[in-house]
Amino acid sequence: MKFIEKLTTIARKNKSLLCVGLDPDPGLMPAQAGIFEFNKAIIDATSDLVCAYKPNLAFYEALGNEGLTALKRTVDYIPEDIPVIADAKRGDIGNTAKAYAQAIFSHFNFDATTVSPYLGFDSIEPFIQYHDKGVFILCRTSNAGAVDFQSLRCEVENGHRLLFEIVALRASRWNIHGNIGLVVGATYPEELRSIRQNHPDMPLLIPGIGAQGGDLALTVRYGVNAQGEKAIINSSRQIIYASRERDFAEAARRAASTLRDQINYHLSTTAE
Amino acid sequence: MKFIEKLTTIARKNKSLLCVGLDPDPGLMPAQAGIFEFNKAIIDATSDLVCAYKPNLAFYEALGNEGLTALKRTVDYIPEDIPVIADAKRGDIGNTAKAYAQAIFSHFNFDATTVSPYLGFDSIEPFIQYHDKGVFILCRTSNAGAVDFQSLRCEVENGHRLLFEIVALRASRWNIHGNIGLVVGATYPEELRSIRQNHPDMPLLIPGIGAQGGDLALTVRYGVNAQGEKAIINSSRQIIYASRERDFAEAARRAASTLRDQINYHLSTTAE
Repeated sequence: MKFIEKLTTIARKNKSLLCVGLDPDPGLMPAQAGIFEFNKAIIDATSDLVCAYKPNLAFYEALGNEGLTALKRTVDYIPEDIPVIADAKRGDIGNTAKAYAQAIFSHFNFDATTVSPYLGFDSIEPFIQYHDKGVFILCRTSNAGAVDFQSLRCEVENGHRLLFEIVALRASRWNIHGNIGLVVGATYPEELRSIRQNHPDMPLLIPGIGAQGGDLALTVRYGVNAQGEKAIINSSRQIIYASRERDFAEAARRAASTLRDQINYHLSTTAE
Repeated sequence: MKFIEKLTTIARKNKSLLCVGLDPDPGLMPAQAGIFEFNKAIIDATSDLVCAYKPNLAFYEALGNEGLTALKRTVDYIPEDIPVIADAKRGDIGNTAKAYAQAIFSHFNFDATTVSPYLGFDSIEPFIQYHDKGVFILCRTSNAGAVDFQSLRCEVENGHRLLFEIVALRASRWNIHGNIGLVVGATYPEELRSIRQNHPDMPLLIPGIGAQGGDLALTVRYGVNAQGEKAIINSSRQIIYASRERDFAEAARRAASTLRDQINYHLSTTAE
């Protein structure tokens, strides 16, 4: 099944636009919890509340082979009907991008990935060649440094655009297989609104609420499409480290349930 | 020892600006060669001819745990006086960039890495905090898609600059620990010249000769600093797949020796 269909189906079933980021950090995890066991408990506690899971590969790579083995087990463990997004932000020349796509889509069997646009189309193409997989291109990221380059005003054929707007426009043009989405941080609501207005039906992966401080009401209002869908609102630390004690899984469930309900509340006021 | 001192010392000892890219591809490697054994044979055959080795992580990740185990063994095996550059092109928000830096510098013990600039300073900072490690920021890459964004004309305080020029300028400004370099592809010699003119002493990592078609004479002339140093000229496929038969290591040595000598020839004509 295509990524976008899988996403839409589970989002409707679970009535959820919430994506839980699975970013294991031994400094924040309950003592003695193994990485896979930690993830498994979080998944068991939240799988009826989410539309996707998103492990960021950095946290697994930092733990060496043990981390990557736990990552593979985690992706395998997640129920088949919930899409799993590799937050990998890869970007390399064609020949090498092909190897990264193979690692992410074939070896790990992720349903989607994030990629960086700096190297241009031939760095993205090997990923979109996997027609059933989703490819989220970094557009406007959630961090403070995003302004360093992404907000530069650049010349285009018919005037000026900010760099992240050009990235979004090119992404639309490159979307010949219908499997491209964009990453737009919740911390820049006006930019999120502008991206959604110009790309009414593109899937948006939206990090930056919770620990990073993005406004949830604006994120929901500006992020969803006309049907109130195709926004994937990610939270990592706020959910998986809701408690650092033995009750971490129950606490994660409460946090995820609350956040899903808040999103749905904002969705209901948006639709009015 | 700081990366840049290690680089300069071995470049003088081996009279070489050549970096060999260790990019294992089972489709191109001799039959039955294990990844580590292949790399070991290449290293044994070329370690007196190079100034650095550069494994691209994609090729190891594509092979799963076996690949990453071979990568770790390879980095450990390379003689202590030869710097090893992780071609990783990572770029993520601060918290996550810290985990990537840990993976590359602490877990794998690389001497340097490549990083992507799209997320701005806070995505680079966790890497340059390792003062003894080198950090090469992607500036003008060697691929065709480089023009999609890197050549956009952008507004800056005092006029206009191309995006890759702005990346280079910011990289210089961020270089407070003296460990930042730039990646500039050999396939764009005019851009290489302009970068070197504006950044006379910054280390440049230059891919794109050989299989990608960059001109070697121009690469040497435009890439080195006034002392004929601080250019790291990478070749991967042209050397490690010089032969796909049993004699691959000897063939790699011949190819590396020829290329090093050609670089030194162009260096001698440049200095005149």
